[in-house]
Amino acid sequence: MSETINSILKEIHQEVLPFLGTGKVVDYIPILNEVDPNKFGMTLISNDRRIYSVGDAQELFSIQSVSKVLTLTLAMQLGEKKVWKRVGREPSGNRFNSLVQLEHENGKPRNPFINAGALVVTDMLISALDDPKAEILDFVRKVSCNSTLEYNLEIAQAEKEMGYTNAALVNFMKSFKNIENDVEEVLDTYFHHCSIMLNTEDLARSFMMLSNQGNMNFCDEQIISRRQSKRINSIMATSGFYDQAGEFAYRVGLPGKSGVSGAIAAVYPGNFSVAVWSPELNSNGNSVLGIEALDRLTTKLELSIY
Amino acid sequence: MSETINSILKEIHQEVLPFLGTGKVVDYIPILNEVDPNKFGMTLISNDRRIYSVGDAQELFSIQSVSKVLTLTLAMQLGEKKVWKRVGREPSGNRFNSLVQLEHENGKPRNPFINAGALVVTDMLISALDDPKAEILDFVRKVSCNSTLEYNLEIAQAEKEMGYTNAALVNFMKSFKNIENDVEEVLDTYFHHCSIMLNTEDLARSFMMLSNQGNMNFCDEQIISRRQSKRINSIMATSGFYDQAGEFAYRVGLPGKSGVSGAIAAVYPGNFSVAVWSPELNSNGNSVLGIEALDRLTTKLELSIY
Amino acid sequence: MSETINSILKEIHQEVLPFLGTGKVVDYIPILNEVDPNKFGMTLISNDRRIYSVGDAQELFSIQSVSKVLTLTLAMQLGEKKVWKRVGREPSGNRFNSLVQLEHENGKPRNPFINAGALVVTDMLISALDDPKAEILDFVRKVSCNSTLEYNLEIAQAEKEMGYTNAALVNFMKSFKNIENDVEEVLDTYFHHCSIMLNTEDLARSFMMLSNQGNMNFCDEQIISRRQSKRINSIMATSGFYDQAGEFAYRVGLPGKSGVSGAIAAVYPGNFSVAVWSPELNSNGNSVLGIEALDRLTTKLELSIY
Amino acid sequence: MSETINSILKEIHQEVLPFLGTGKVVDYIPILNEVDPNKFGMTLISNDRRIYSVGDAQELFSIQSVSKVLTLTLAMQLGEKKVWKRVGREPSGNRFNSLVQLEHENGKPRNPFINAGALVVTDMLISALDDPKAEILDFVRKVSCNSTLEYNLEIAQAEKEMGYTNAALVNFMKSFKNIENDVEEVLDTYFHHCSIMLNTEDLARSFMMLSNQGNMNFCDEQIISRRQSKRINSIMATSGFYDQAGEFAYRVGLPGKSGVSGAIAAVYPGNFSVAVWSPELNSNGNSVLGIEALDRLTTKLELSIY
Repeated sequence: MSETINSILKEIHQEVLPFLGTGKVVDYIPILNEVDPNKFGMTLISNDRRIYSVGDAQELFSIQSVSKVLTLTLAMQLGEKKVWKRVGREPSGNRFNSLVQLEHENGKPRNPFINAGALVVTDMLISALDDPKAEILDFVRKVSCNSTLEYNLEIAQAEKEMGYTNAALVNFMKSFKNIENDVEEVLDTYFHHCSIMLNTEDLARSFMMLSNQGNMNFCDEQIISRRQSKRINSIMATSGFYDQAGEFAYRVGLPGKSGVSGAIAAVYPGNFSVAVWSPELNSNGNSVLGIEALDRLTTKLELSIY
Repeated sequence: MSETINSILKEIHQEVLPFLGTGKVVDYIPILNEVDPNKFGMTLISNDRRIYSVGDAQELFSIQSVSKVLTLTLAMQLGEKKVWKRVGREPSGNRFNSLVQLEHENGKPRNPFINAGALVVTDMLISALDDPKAEILDFVRKVSCNSTLEYNLEIAQAEKEMGYTNAALVNFMKSFKNIENDVEEVLDTYFHHCSIMLNTEDLARSFMMLSNQGNMNFCDEQIISRRQSKRINSIMATSGFYDQAGEFAYRVGLPGKSGVSGAIAAVYPGNFSVAVWSPELNSNGNSVLGIEALDRLTTKLELSIY
Repeated sequence: MSETINSILKEIHQEVLPFLGTGKVVDYIPILNEVDPNKFGMTLISNDRRIYSVGDAQELFSIQSVSKVLTLTLAMQLGEKKVWKRVGREPSGNRFNSLVQLEHENGKPRNPFINAGALVVTDMLISALDDPKAEILDFVRKVSCNSTLEYNLEIAQAEKEMGYTNAALVNFMKSFKNIENDVEEVLDTYFHHCSIMLNTEDLARSFMMLSNQGNMNFCDEQIISRRQSKRINSIMATSGFYDQAGEFAYRVGLPGKSGVSGAIAAVYPGNFSVAVWSPELNSNGNSVLGIEALDRLTTKLELSIY
Repeated sequence: MSETINSILKEIHQEVLPFLGTGKVVDYIPILNEVDPNKFGMTLISNDRRIYSVGDAQELFSIQSVSKVLTLTLAMQLGEKKVWKRVGREPSGNRFNSLVQLEHENGKPRNPFINAGALVVTDMLISALDDPKAEILDFVRKVSCNSTLEYNLEIAQAEKEMGYTNAALVNFMKSFKNIENDVEEVLDTYFHHCSIMLNTEDLARSFMMLSNQGNMNFCDEQIISRRQSKRINSIMATSGFYDQAGEFAYRVGLPGKSGVSGAIAAVYPGNFSVAVWSPELNSNGNSVLGIEALDRLTTKLELSIY
């Protein structure tokens, strides 16, 4: 089996390289655009704790929106009931940063994976934690089994300086009383957790709790309940890929979440977690090679949840 | 195994009966409201062709929106490429009959399971078939292995007389040139296929092609390709339950589709199809007992795609 | 004074001719596109009943949306209270045929000059009149002092055949119970009154009741009250020109209403009514030469309500 | 004539007092809610410079949104062309602080009297002026002929602390690059000019430039051109009263602008300016007694622009 997976990952690597040059590295802030567009790394971790990697699996990138899954996990751990009072669990059908839906639904975001929803989750963490930025980082370190992870302060700062849409979202939700803390603190904390630097091995490890019924099996710690893990996976399945959730569901057939750095993490519940990173994005903001690679993975393994 | 499933269905039956009276039978047309609200029927068919039923599994009800899955299947069989030119595959994030999204996206519906999308699919069938109403009914008879199924002309007529929102949708899409045929014919054909009368055994049989990679295994006929079956299941998973798709994904964890008659059909790909019927609906228009029953089914079987 | 106005109209005629060729004749139905694009006619009628005309003031054209003012007048005459229960009086801020606003405001159109509003007014007339089409035509004949006016059945028929957006609007409002009569009859009646053929003299005469406090001073008949005349003029001022109401208010400074045939009628309350016709339209659907002519008229007369 | 106006104002005062208690003082910030709800002041200034006042015409109140007219005037004086590149001139059809329209029209507000538009105008003033807050106050002092006017720093500060919707608007427009300056500075300047304290005499004086073709006739200074004055009046006529512009046009028939402090200023071009203040607001955010008083004024004087 190990051999099979290793050779499948190698095949995938060869097959996706021709797609280099067909996407576009994110450019709304210069520092994110400086990355080498030719990178591709991929790591699969099976529930029996075997790690399979290919390509640039040791290279660091910023986690970006994939962090929304981890902050949601932490918020659910701290008290799930509160979460669903302030954020919905349904697909949004709108761009990731739309204000229209918020206006029509009184400031309650459709789900925790659109920006508005992730900002509300961040606000909850600030209310619940003594030292939010330190504790969020600690949590990501714990679930990724890597105590060396750090915020990239330069990226966090650059995002904040250009983060007018997110500032609009937080202010707008605050006008509906769905933000408790100071606007600046919410934005600062949010941009910090989006800036965490890691590689595909770290990312795949951090998603093992979702492939393994809430249990981070490297250290056998139950992070969240089985039920909560199922909840998060179901939201990733319907809402993890902006305007391309349906397409990802079909092509890949796994619950997952993408970020503008070109990162994607996904899980095959009961079997494995997988992370892939390649900076070039398609017009929906998802990694071109990432989606190609995951499509091939589930095709070659002949698995799909559908 | 057979014994297990039989006893699980019996348990479920007992457990969901207390929910009678907590929902509301649909009342926008009188004939649909005349049904006995206390009905509950459920049928599971495993991929090895065993049929397990409980309750009112022999009672007929109108298929309503569950027919959208069958007409989509037929349209994909006739030529899938055309389908996705005129209908999207992403969650809508809006009520099932919203015109707003259509206005902002030039008359192209978000997916084939909102009314607008199903009406476009119906229009395609009219263009492709010689005798649309007869051939659609023949197709449903074939995939349900029941040649006695009939349209309920009284229901079809009553729906048509009150179908102003659907008439608005067809006319609006026609103004964007996304309807080819006569408005009246599209509506007439649509309301006909929603009026097909069947029981939960028929319905579960008709979904076997989706639990079995496109193959209707009772007669071993490949209705659609494995890829197409996966496509339909993935759209059901993100868009099969109006504004409750995310909730159904979490609670039940299976791709499925509901109708206002209180019918729900779902599949566990590679394993079984299941149909349930109970007329009382929750505020999202989905069967109260139907969702309770399916939630219990996947909990008791300890299965979920998430 | 008469001489002054005559020479001003002649000047205007010369000054606007160079604008020929800068707009586009309406083309959504062929018969409306067959008109000679080089036509320009203009008639001003002072409250002392003097008629001043220039250009093609004897040529017939279809009244189109300018009829919305006349059907509103008739509906207010028959019972104003009912009107405002079912139609608003505020600017819409949307395209003339938007369904979005209707969806968010439960099927009540913003004002009687967007299509949805005019369709509701037409529905009221059908409910109130014994022979709606005959009586609407009679009313327009009366207020224009021209008993020879006729519907153009060819135009009415062609509009109806292509009128999918309006059919969508009527059906949609019917789903909100804001249409009482049969959908087809509402559309048929609406397209009939839009098809009335008249010239600029007829049109200017028909607007005298609005320049003269409700009194059609040619025959000294009080059609509506002074208060009602003021009401209609104020709605024309805020909502008479689709997305260009603000621009018309500024450039011309008179309450008025335009139609896609290139007709515009306007009033200077207490002084005169004016009608202009030239088929080429700007991108907002208003007559290019018509607006240029009225802009020059109020500039040369040094009058504006602002 | 003077006697007539004086007695008319007295009559009006008596007639509107019974409406006290039917509206609601604004309460989104405590300091604005502290005002005595029973106040009513009114001043009319004819173009021959006669001042007619009644009631609490010497009491100070904050100018609030009426300041939008004055900042627009200043911006047009500094360079009109730039203004219309960044702000529209059409009615919005939405609530005064809607973000939906902005999202669909790429961050360009519909007109300068909705909050978004006024914030863009404020941004222009910051770019154009050396000491924006000082120079804006100087301008208001000049056009009101009252060099003692001051900002109410307590109100400005309180507004800013609660100004989340406006902060959302500025950030959102900045994401579309329609704000040039620092978000905080735009908000600070905006809330300052809304906090200017004046009485109805000051306010009526400051609107004389709009009743008198751009000329502030107390000191015979041409503030803006006649054309610009007409432009501002036409925008007030279509967009000066939030969701009640059509109603005000009909009942009062004058271009005007209201504010949440209960202030309304209006003009009868060529004849007079008028200001009225009474804190209780109707559900549209306009002064109850203010609208009643202006309705009576134009009825008694038998004048309307319609």
